[in-house]
Amino acid sequence: MARHDGRSPDQLRPVKITRGWLPHAEGSVLVEFGATTVLCAASVQDSVPRWRRGSGLGWVTAEYAMLPRATNTRTDRESVRGKIGGRTHEISRLIGRSLRACVDYKALGENSIVLDCDVLRADGGTRTAAITGAYVALVDAVRWMRKRKMCPGDPLVDSVAAVSVGIVGDTPLLDLCYTEDVAAETDMNVVMTGSGEFVEVQGTAEGVPFARGTLDSLLDLATAGCVDLTRYQREALA
Amino acid sequence: MARHDGRSPDQLRPVKITRGWLPHAEGSVLVEFGATTVLCAASVQDSVPRWRRGSGLGWVTAEYAMLPRATNTRTDRESVRGKIGGRTHEISRLIGRSLRACVDYKALGENSIVLDCDVLRADGGTRTAAITGAYVALVDAVRWMRKRKMCPGDPLVDSVAAVSVGIVGDTPLLDLCYTEDVAAETDMNVVMTGSGEFVEVQGTAEGVPFARGTLDSLLDLATAGCVDLTRYQREALA
Amino acid sequence: MARHDGRSPDQLRPVKITRGWLPHAEGSVLVEFGATTVLCAASVQDSVPRWRRGSGLGWVTAEYAMLPRATNTRTDRESVRGKIGGRTHEISRLIGRSLRACVDYKALGENSIVLDCDVLRADGGTRTAAITGAYVALVDAVRWMRKRKMCPGDPLVDSVAAVSVGIVGDTPLLDLCYTEDVAAETDMNVVMTGSGEFVEVQGTAEGVPFARGTLDSLLDLATAGCVDLTRYQREALA
Amino acid sequence: MARHDGRSPDQLRPVKITRGWLPHAEGSVLVEFGATTVLCAASVQDSVPRWRRGSGLGWVTAEYAMLPRATNTRTDRESVRGKIGGRTHEISRLIGRSLRACVDYKALGENSIVLDCDVLRADGGTRTAAITGAYVALVDAVRWMRKRKMCPGDPLVDSVAAVSVGIVGDTPLLDLCYTEDVAAETDMNVVMTGSGEFVEVQGTAEGVPFARGTLDSLLDLATAGCVDLTRYQREALA
Amino acid sequence: MARHDGRSPDQLRPVKITRGWLPHAEGSVLVEFGATTVLCAASVQDSVPRWRRGSGLGWVTAEYAMLPRATNTRTDRESVRGKIGGRTHEISRLIGRSLRACVDYKALGENSIVLDCDVLRADGGTRTAAITGAYVALVDAVRWMRKRKMCPGDPLVDSVAAVSVGIVGDTPLLDLCYTEDVAAETDMNVVMTGSGEFVEVQGTAEGVPFARGTLDSLLDLATAGCVDLTRYQREALA
Amino acid sequence: MARHDGRSPDQLRPVKITRGWLPHAEGSVLVEFGATTVLCAASVQDSVPRWRRGSGLGWVTAEYAMLPRATNTRTDRESVRGKIGGRTHEISRLIGRSLRACVDYKALGENSIVLDCDVLRADGGTRTAAITGAYVALVDAVRWMRKRKMCPGDPLVDSVAAVSVGIVGDTPLLDLCYTEDVAAETDMNVVMTGSGEFVEVQGTAEGVPFARGTLDSLLDLATAGCVDLTRYQREALA
Repeated sequence: MARHDGRSPDQLRPVKITRGWLPHAEGSVLVEFGATTVLCAASVQDSVPRWRRGSGLGWVTAEYAMLPRATNTRTDRESVRGKIGGRTHEISRLIGRSLRACVDYKALGENSIVLDCDVLRADGGTRTAAITGAYVALVDAVRWMRKRKMCPGDPLVDSVAAVSVGIVGDTPLLDLCYTEDVAAETDMNVVMTGSGEFVEVQGTAEGVPFARGTLDSLLDLATAGCVDLTRYQREALA
Repeated sequence: MARHDGRSPDQLRPVKITRGWLPHAEGSVLVEFGATTVLCAASVQDSVPRWRRGSGLGWVTAEYAMLPRATNTRTDRESVRGKIGGRTHEISRLIGRSLRACVDYKALGENSIVLDCDVLRADGGTRTAAITGAYVALVDAVRWMRKRKMCPGDPLVDSVAAVSVGIVGDTPLLDLCYTEDVAAETDMNVVMTGSGEFVEVQGTAEGVPFARGTLDSLLDLATAGCVDLTRYQREALA
Repeated sequence: MARHDGRSPDQLRPVKITRGWLPHAEGSVLVEFGATTVLCAASVQDSVPRWRRGSGLGWVTAEYAMLPRATNTRTDRESVRGKIGGRTHEISRLIGRSLRACVDYKALGENSIVLDCDVLRADGGTRTAAITGAYVALVDAVRWMRKRKMCPGDPLVDSVAAVSVGIVGDTPLLDLCYTEDVAAETDMNVVMTGSGEFVEVQGTAEGVPFARGTLDSLLDLATAGCVDLTRYQREALA
Repeated sequence: MARHDGRSPDQLRPVKITRGWLPHAEGSVLVEFGATTVLCAASVQDSVPRWRRGSGLGWVTAEYAMLPRATNTRTDRESVRGKIGGRTHEISRLIGRSLRACVDYKALGENSIVLDCDVLRADGGTRTAAITGAYVALVDAVRWMRKRKMCPGDPLVDSVAAVSVGIVGDTPLLDLCYTEDVAAETDMNVVMTGSGEFVEVQGTAEGVPFARGTLDSLLDLATAGCVDLTRYQREALA
Repeated sequence: MARHDGRSPDQLRPVKITRGWLPHAEGSVLVEFGATTVLCAASVQDSVPRWRRGSGLGWVTAEYAMLPRATNTRTDRESVRGKIGGRTHEISRLIGRSLRACVDYKALGENSIVLDCDVLRADGGTRTAAITGAYVALVDAVRWMRKRKMCPGDPLVDSVAAVSVGIVGDTPLLDLCYTEDVAAETDMNVVMTGSGEFVEVQGTAEGVPFARGTLDSLLDLATAGCVDLTRYQREALA
Repeated sequence: MARHDGRSPDQLRPVKITRGWLPHAEGSVLVEFGATTVLCAASVQDSVPRWRRGSGLGWVTAEYAMLPRATNTRTDRESVRGKIGGRTHEISRLIGRSLRACVDYKALGENSIVLDCDVLRADGGTRTAAITGAYVALVDAVRWMRKRKMCPGDPLVDSVAAVSVGIVGDTPLLDLCYTEDVAAETDMNVVMTGSGEFVEVQGTAEGVPFARGTLDSLLDLATAGCVDLTRYQREALA
């Protein structure tokens, strides 16, 4: 099966990671997976949420959103509708959990880092691009903190990257763009550490339930994709 | 490792499925996984959401909620706070997607079924109990519709059940209760069809990322659990 | 006039009070007035609202809600609509005021008790069943507190029960079920103490305004009904 | 017991009813019960709510609110807080029900009247002043409609007035001002028709539950007060 | 061009300023610009918003709103809709900024004054009437504070008044009423101090963009109008 | 007075207008005034708001927002807070009014254009950059429509640009950056057409009220600035 942009089934789209995109943020990254473009900002606060105070532990959280015209047709603003939709909530929580997997709260000290991931252009894989970019912004924020001696230790114990995989017309594909995502019978987002372990596995049968063998081949594909993304992250941070 | 209720690692809690718990609902089930108790109501509407009108296709959706004192300590009502939290949104969406996996929209005709899953008592596994019970309520609602000849065909193409699995102290456990869930390093919810295929796989590293081998053993455990739950569903519906 | 369930005009529906329905709540009761079923949970907090702090006095409050399919046709969730309706507000306030009538705030100490009354099945009289059940849950919560020596004295100075009465086709009826409630020209909810005094009297002319004589006969009927309910409460608590 | 403004226990405060206070409203009244001042506006719409369409019947509804500085200390605006409080909801519903008691929906035709009751100055009895004034505004709106031949018949079958009564230091008092209201052990709002029947009776034990005899004496007092208010309404409308 | 109320183009409507309209407010004014009637209440608080605490400086803020039937046709309440509209927000902010222009925060001490401006009757120029009346209420509140020695100095450094001007059919007009406002091609609100300087200039081309010469003539007209309004304020305060 | 970036008082910051930044939007522009960066998207809809239907006239509206980390310190999301703030409302309304000043609704036909202006990086002048960029996006959207023959005529009758001016330490400055904006005693935003007339003039005395002479000199400065911006727009569109 030929992919409309000529990629092989196990090939990522061109990945571009631009650091320091925002002049004020402690860490900021414009990450591109093909046409998908996400602006990731890491903001440091020298305090933690109330339920965490006095624990000596830090916290990392994330908020995901889309600009109204990131998509094909205009989407109404959640601020105007007065509430956040289920999809936004779900992805914000996923990004937060994923990033926390590589953080040592004790070494972070009683500080918080908020990761804002705003999708400027959407073409599939916005949540995986967000996680992959947010990790780089997080590293920059941690470096900023360590330069100011805000952390008792090194809060980063690993790296984190994410990619989507799916079955389109019986073929397992890596890093789906929007049209592939719509066509996929099964859709999976996989978050992995740089050391090759799983942080999140979220597989959904969009149309037809999938067999264990399918699941296994998708996990293989995602594992390889995350290895590549980890390399891109390292190069960007070098 | 001994479980505090004496179960073996691959054993479900006692499952109880009581049909017809609500006098007015087209389908209703009180489902119990040990102390976890969820009231599942299926409400039939002879219309579909606006974006679906004129398509000849039906729709199935779900709403999940917890009573304030289902839990150890009281939780504020989302109606009083004026908005639905991320966790509630996420679980409602999961239940809806899971049930839709066994529905033939065309055979359902332009009708909707809403599945309300309200947790009366929470002791871990509320979302998996909800999915397992909601399927039985859905069957009753479909039978109610077919008696009234509302459906062009048989809308149910398979059954759906769900169970949680996790790693506690290196041991993979089936159907975690609340204290096990809190202690788990890795936590996975698996939704499967009666014919043994996957509908949803959601695995999360709560503390430590997990290796592929761990993932595989959890999937094995969940598969066996879903087979048992499918049998309980059939018995309840007989 | 014959009532459709064969009751005499001055007869209550079968009343069932099940204590300890929730494993975690300090007090909990499943109360049934015929088909009407309300789950009442009493939650103890060792603090009071801000405006009450430092006063040495306690506080009791209540929240009422209905599950979406407690009723004949599905009702949208107030959490999804994002706001609480007028009827819910009104009944929550009524329950709170009613229960506070039997509480000695000083003897309660600076503690709060929240009474959550969730209607699982609705067939008329949900607010009066809620008050009658909530009183029993309140007693259990107070016993729990006194065992832990949280209260400076005995906070319960009396008991409280409630019943609805109404005029249907010129006949005054006790404890209206849903179809009677809809048919009633006048509808009254009466809350009384165990010692036979009034806490709340709320009478409403649904169709035709009512004369003083009608009001008097309804009050007589309600008084007798509350005596019976008080006896059921005592038996349940024995 | 002497009342601080020299009234006898069964005496109303000075009542003033000014019609036509708003230049645009179909009916409008500034009603004063002593220092309590409520602006009542009746707005006519040639349509009914959706659930009423095609029935040939009209509808009457009410909304009550307080200006932030009507009270002793400033109250935050409900528009700023983003939601309507329980008290506001409750009183709006009471006013609507009370006014509907004197309306023949069929004679009104498929038209609606909204009664806006905004408290400009509050000194106790705002809801009873609102009902009493809103009736007069309603009459003016109905006259306006009949002049334009909008109604199939005469929609007003009776008049409606309301007054508060209460027990302060063992004495039953009519038409409580704010300081009396705060001191009252029992507090009752009574809505009656011009023909002397009850529309609403809402009695609440603020401190001590009350005996049947107390209830009877309060009802007597309120009945006399409503007779006086009905006369004031007639004079204002003459 | 003749104005429908016979005014000359540079003539204000009759202005009436009634002080002490609310019995409880520290300052209150009913201000009338022709048929436009605004109730302005100044509420003193012996605290400041959190971001201002410990600064030794005071704060002045304002909230503007319209009663639902102040206008020709009924407007829905913002409290019922659950949010404040853009126009309300904008005018509240304008009133606050305007009044703050004549306040010395240091002399005010760490106290706040809230100015509530509620439009009872609207016939154009509600925001300018609100500013003009709110200034007088502010003076009364400050006098009340100074009598109680709450302020370290005299917080009022000048007076503030406001007026609208606009071009209707090529003629610059002062103090537009509603029908003129609707017909205006250009519309400007000008806020000035008693000493003749500008606090706010807000000009909007409703239909056709305007030339510099037009702008100049409108500013001349507004300047003269504010001189008159300042005189009315002084007379009211004498 | 030297400006910290070396500009002369009457000099704009470097202006950059990048068209076609979003692949899906009918018109889109990334506009930069120095470090201030705003993404402007124009979305075409072949319908108009309800109040406009059947009129044959089109409509143009705008929504303004800031990304959370566009600013020095992180700002909470309005979607998370559940409501839009006053400043956002005010600026959205200003942008909409400004753009409508150059539109012929009849030539637009019954179509709408929504202009989304999202601030990616904020350094003062975000609303004026938004207006200036939105005009270019609007032109592209109109060209897109005309190519598809959606418009009965040419909907653009002029161009629109905007700039801020202010007094800092007695010197009138053009196009204030953030630090200048904070230091300004008087602050004015001016919107002008390409033909040199005024669309909006909004002047605010931040600290000290300003004299007529100051106002005049600021208007001169803004007029010159808008001439330059109009030229940049033309070059970008060439």
